[in-house]
Amino acid sequence: MIIRFDSDYLEGCHPRILERLAATNLEQTQGYGIDPHCARAADLIRKACSAPSAAVHFLVGGTQTNATVIKSLLRPQEGVICADTGHINVHESGAIEATGHKVLPLPTEDGTLTAGQVREALQEFYADPTREHRVQPGMLYISHPSENGTLYTREGLSALRVVCQEYGIPIYLDGARLGYGLTAEGTDLSLPELIWLCDAFYIGGTKCGALFGEAVVLPDPNLIRGFRTLIKQQGGLLAKGRLLGLQFEVLFEDGLYFDIAAHANRQACRIRDAFCRKGYELLYDSPTNQQFPILPEQDIARLQERFSFEHWQKTGPGAGAKNWAVRFCTSWATTKEQTDKLIQAIEEL
Amino acid sequence: MIIRFDSDYLEGCHPRILERLAATNLEQTQGYGIDPHCARAADLIRKACSAPSAAVHFLVGGTQTNATVIKSLLRPQEGVICADTGHINVHESGAIEATGHKVLPLPTEDGTLTAGQVREALQEFYADPTREHRVQPGMLYISHPSENGTLYTREGLSALRVVCQEYGIPIYLDGARLGYGLTAEGTDLSLPELIWLCDAFYIGGTKCGALFGEAVVLPDPNLIRGFRTLIKQQGGLLAKGRLLGLQFEVLFEDGLYFDIAAHANRQACRIRDAFCRKGYELLYDSPTNQQFPILPEQDIARLQERFSFEHWQKTGPGAGAKNWAVRFCTSWATTKEQTDKLIQAIEEL
Amino acid sequence: MIIRFDSDYLEGCHPRILERLAATNLEQTQGYGIDPHCARAADLIRKACSAPSAAVHFLVGGTQTNATVIKSLLRPQEGVICADTGHINVHESGAIEATGHKVLPLPTEDGTLTAGQVREALQEFYADPTREHRVQPGMLYISHPSENGTLYTREGLSALRVVCQEYGIPIYLDGARLGYGLTAEGTDLSLPELIWLCDAFYIGGTKCGALFGEAVVLPDPNLIRGFRTLIKQQGGLLAKGRLLGLQFEVLFEDGLYFDIAAHANRQACRIRDAFCRKGYELLYDSPTNQQFPILPEQDIARLQERFSFEHWQKTGPGAGAKNWAVRFCTSWATTKEQTDKLIQAIEEL
Amino acid sequence: MIIRFDSDYLEGCHPRILERLAATNLEQTQGYGIDPHCARAADLIRKACSAPSAAVHFLVGGTQTNATVIKSLLRPQEGVICADTGHINVHESGAIEATGHKVLPLPTEDGTLTAGQVREALQEFYADPTREHRVQPGMLYISHPSENGTLYTREGLSALRVVCQEYGIPIYLDGARLGYGLTAEGTDLSLPELIWLCDAFYIGGTKCGALFGEAVVLPDPNLIRGFRTLIKQQGGLLAKGRLLGLQFEVLFEDGLYFDIAAHANRQACRIRDAFCRKGYELLYDSPTNQQFPILPEQDIARLQERFSFEHWQKTGPGAGAKNWAVRFCTSWATTKEQTDKLIQAIEEL
Repeated sequence: MIIRFDSDYLEGCHPRILERLAATNLEQTQGYGIDPHCARAADLIRKACSAPSAAVHFLVGGTQTNATVIKSLLRPQEGVICADTGHINVHESGAIEATGHKVLPLPTEDGTLTAGQVREALQEFYADPTREHRVQPGMLYISHPSENGTLYTREGLSALRVVCQEYGIPIYLDGARLGYGLTAEGTDLSLPELIWLCDAFYIGGTKCGALFGEAVVLPDPNLIRGFRTLIKQQGGLLAKGRLLGLQFEVLFEDGLYFDIAAHANRQACRIRDAFCRKGYELLYDSPTNQQFPILPEQDIARLQERFSFEHWQKTGPGAGAKNWAVRFCTSWATTKEQTDKLIQAIEEL
Repeated sequence: MIIRFDSDYLEGCHPRILERLAATNLEQTQGYGIDPHCARAADLIRKACSAPSAAVHFLVGGTQTNATVIKSLLRPQEGVICADTGHINVHESGAIEATGHKVLPLPTEDGTLTAGQVREALQEFYADPTREHRVQPGMLYISHPSENGTLYTREGLSALRVVCQEYGIPIYLDGARLGYGLTAEGTDLSLPELIWLCDAFYIGGTKCGALFGEAVVLPDPNLIRGFRTLIKQQGGLLAKGRLLGLQFEVLFEDGLYFDIAAHANRQACRIRDAFCRKGYELLYDSPTNQQFPILPEQDIARLQERFSFEHWQKTGPGAGAKNWAVRFCTSWATTKEQTDKLIQAIEEL
Repeated sequence: MIIRFDSDYLEGCHPRILERLAATNLEQTQGYGIDPHCARAADLIRKACSAPSAAVHFLVGGTQTNATVIKSLLRPQEGVICADTGHINVHESGAIEATGHKVLPLPTEDGTLTAGQVREALQEFYADPTREHRVQPGMLYISHPSENGTLYTREGLSALRVVCQEYGIPIYLDGARLGYGLTAEGTDLSLPELIWLCDAFYIGGTKCGALFGEAVVLPDPNLIRGFRTLIKQQGGLLAKGRLLGLQFEVLFEDGLYFDIAAHANRQACRIRDAFCRKGYELLYDSPTNQQFPILPEQDIARLQERFSFEHWQKTGPGAGAKNWAVRFCTSWATTKEQTDKLIQAIEEL
Repeated sequence: MIIRFDSDYLEGCHPRILERLAATNLEQTQGYGIDPHCARAADLIRKACSAPSAAVHFLVGGTQTNATVIKSLLRPQEGVICADTGHINVHESGAIEATGHKVLPLPTEDGTLTAGQVREALQEFYADPTREHRVQPGMLYISHPSENGTLYTREGLSALRVVCQEYGIPIYLDGARLGYGLTAEGTDLSLPELIWLCDAFYIGGTKCGALFGEAVVLPDPNLIRGFRTLIKQQGGLLAKGRLLGLQFEVLFEDGLYFDIAAHANRQACRIRDAFCRKGYELLYDSPTNQQFPILPEQDIARLQERFSFEHWQKTGPGAGAKNWAVRFCTSWATTKEQTDKLIQAIEEL
């Protein structure tokens, strides 16, 4: 049977969430996120962020969350700066443009942006005498980890923050895989830092152990007026909102969110190291749950006999000619045994 | 302890859905609705509709579904006709307008529209020499049951169909509570009729036993080009799409959807009859799971000691002066015992 | 030959504007409203408003202006309150909804709104426990004169202002026919009052003597950030912007705007009085350039032999049975002789 | 006194248009483009296009026209392919995104696109297994002349047509400066070819002799349902629509449109040749009214003493180090004498 490393949303959810769903199933609660589970989950997240006054809102999925937050933060003449690999630029079916806003992509090597290039883009805009005819850069969108598994450092994010504050635009961090980022080896970022370095971010549940669900954190609770109505307008206000609350309760009441992310990272790094030991190159230097080894087609074929994974992109013309970067994803559900089998297969290549 | 009749989404989901969630939790499936559960659920629904070629798509919630379908069916200069009580007109935070379209409300007595009034509205529009400066009526939205629990008859819906076909506009039926409508005493509408009488409709899961989920049925599978991309754009394409599929599998593999709706209707009608026996009037004549008795404030207060329910609207100045129509909702989770207790309390008023 | 009273935009423009166009035709100026004519016109308007710090922007037409201002003033979850007869609600092809915002109509007798009903609507909204699921009232749109030729008084407008300030929403006044309003007999409103009583308004050129053009006045020049970019985005930034500037120069350098409006009002009131003397009723009590007598069909037919005018609406079932309210419009181009002929025809009915 | 070559919209309009405005000023016509002047202008354009059944609509400006046509041609999940220098991508303040659609830019050397690169982009899209999560390419936007003055050939445009038909997407040609393109030396494209090679295009008036105005031509008059309502919705339906009609009457009744464009091209090419004779390079090979010589800063400074023109872009680091490509524009209003003076100054550099 094929062992799948295609994505981090292949299975349902961590068993403890299922148990909680069953245990609470007959509780009667008010709808739309006004319930004790959402309240407690928000408190747990505020505590984890050391941000007692932050606002926490729960939405169902990432595209919805991005569109809602971005639409809430921009004025109609503004667009959102992001890496050209940013999820909102490539894989959300134009959800941002559907709210009326242009995505303003900047080139990136590995999925992250530098303060230098954001500053340069803003400087170029404000130096352009025709800028009144252009979309104003109104906010910065970054992903952490990026779509390529790479990470910002505290220094890098702080530098972005300085630039954005100088130009008066908010930073929004897409944390679809935030757990993996915050537990990666060597990272110096944690939730309390994000409170100071971002104007808005979300803690991804869907890809980090939940059935679904993303927790938007607004360090300044007054940043977005009418946010719940905006969530409703975008179709993101779940009727049985407590389902979101209780999942984040489970994830945050004793650190499960971080434990399962750290586990997935460990398995991913074991896979990465196995490829490196065999001399394969990596497309990106990722310390998180996505790994991007570059493999010749025949090795891909051999691995595919027993494992599934994603083709990511063709790599440039080299000695091997027909190389692909492929993506291996781990998650809470990846077992040590599954990883062992993959590593053994890598070693046999 | 208070017994709640506030809404039909107070609890989690029917226990069999929970069981299925647990049983399938570790299956590895592709995301975004391309999985065996969604495929099988779609087949079951097609079978229940006697519509082997219909397209079936699964979305998370009702507002999202309405916005996605309506945006997909309208051209930019068009608006959607609906009853002024229609959910899209009053309780979706402007989700339809956020997609660029005007809602064109018509007055209604009980939440339903007649073919006569729709025809009149269309005739008025096409007779207006200034109509090029107006929003074109581009489709008809109806709710079945309506927001007031009332129902269309086969004759009424057929007549709407005739008018709409004459003017070349599609009918979309919001079935947030469709189960209750299709199992109501005396109804002559069933799923196969909807296939012939509507261009699009959805089978509501959220309010009919599921944790969440709505199944859009398009009798003509080619009606909407690129619908999955549109769902993604509106933020409705669930990453772990199989969660939607497996819920509808449970609901449709042996008629559970209809059984639980019929149960809820029975409890609701028992409540209705109890009020009628005591001489209370009803705001609407509903055979479904929502009941709207008109009560004086002191009776409301007495019932509220042990039961919760919604204030719906103040009624006109009558003998009692301070009367409210209130709403009692039942669901799959309402037990006969809970209903018995409420009926007893009504009898003691 | 038919003398036309159909509308106030039948002819080109006041001859002095044509002369100015010719005199300035070969001047070379920068585009998009950054030119000496726009600068001077803005100064003249600021002077006429006694508002030295107001911002003045020039757009081409009314629908464009309304959509641009309203989109600029609302947040995405907000809608705009207006009379149900408001131009934005009925005759702008859904331009407001196309920017994502719901129009929130209130009933009106004569085209104007009262502070009482606006307050009541706002109170109802803020008292509704489900208001998070509704479109938030984010601003007030009024027309002065209204689409029915009727006027606000200083008292009436001040009362609206008090309500709006209490609820923190701006007032925007559509002045498509503002000249006629400000020169109507008995009015106690003038431009300087509008500066204090509105957050934004426009001085209509198209219907008041110009070829085209509307001057938006923002008493607080910082009210709308990036307004020129918003105008461009909505397609309202005229390349040869000076055409707008020079028309408003002509209209405001020695009071021509008011002279021609007063002239049109005088002719309109003579027509009104002629109808009244013959015992006809008026649909609205308009002191401005639009008059709405109620005529039986046979009288309409007789007048149509020599004059054209608009059918406005059928009136209720009365003695005459088949009565219509019709609309007669005058403008700068209506001559005393044309009016004399119409009056004579009325007297001969 | 400075002679200006900054743009082609520095002056008012061709004197014959002014005369016509004066001659028709007191005519009474219906509004919104339903008048004899628009009808006759449309006929003249249909004749010039050898397209007796084409639909012709008049709008005020280019951004408005682009947004209206593009919004009319796309379904909500679709975007518009264009050159990354395309006006809609860079200088329209996000007008396309404001209608909900993503602009899909392709790289370009000189402002034009090749069939090869469009085909490649479409192939890449349809080969992508994740394409359901991406914006669908729904149409092609090209500018002729491009923003850099360059032109398509009949062969090049035909090849684009073949690709677009293969993928079922329409071609829309932005003809803001179409006159200059159609009269350029060596072009093999004329209006009748555009009828066969485009699904929609507009004949620019604003930059080609009119005060303002753009004529949209739809070879298939049924291509866009409800187009007049869409124009109104976008704020482009001029109340005194005849102003648009009569300008295009003057431009097309005896070929004035082409005469003045050819004149401007001749003056522009004389300027180009003068620069070339002196050994300056050109950024683009333009046969139309915009010329882009590359000049060292000191030469720019000397020319600026007597002439104005636009800085276009810095050129790469070469021998001269501080070079700029600048833009010289001619128009109907550029006299031979003005050009002579500029050429003399060039020769004296």
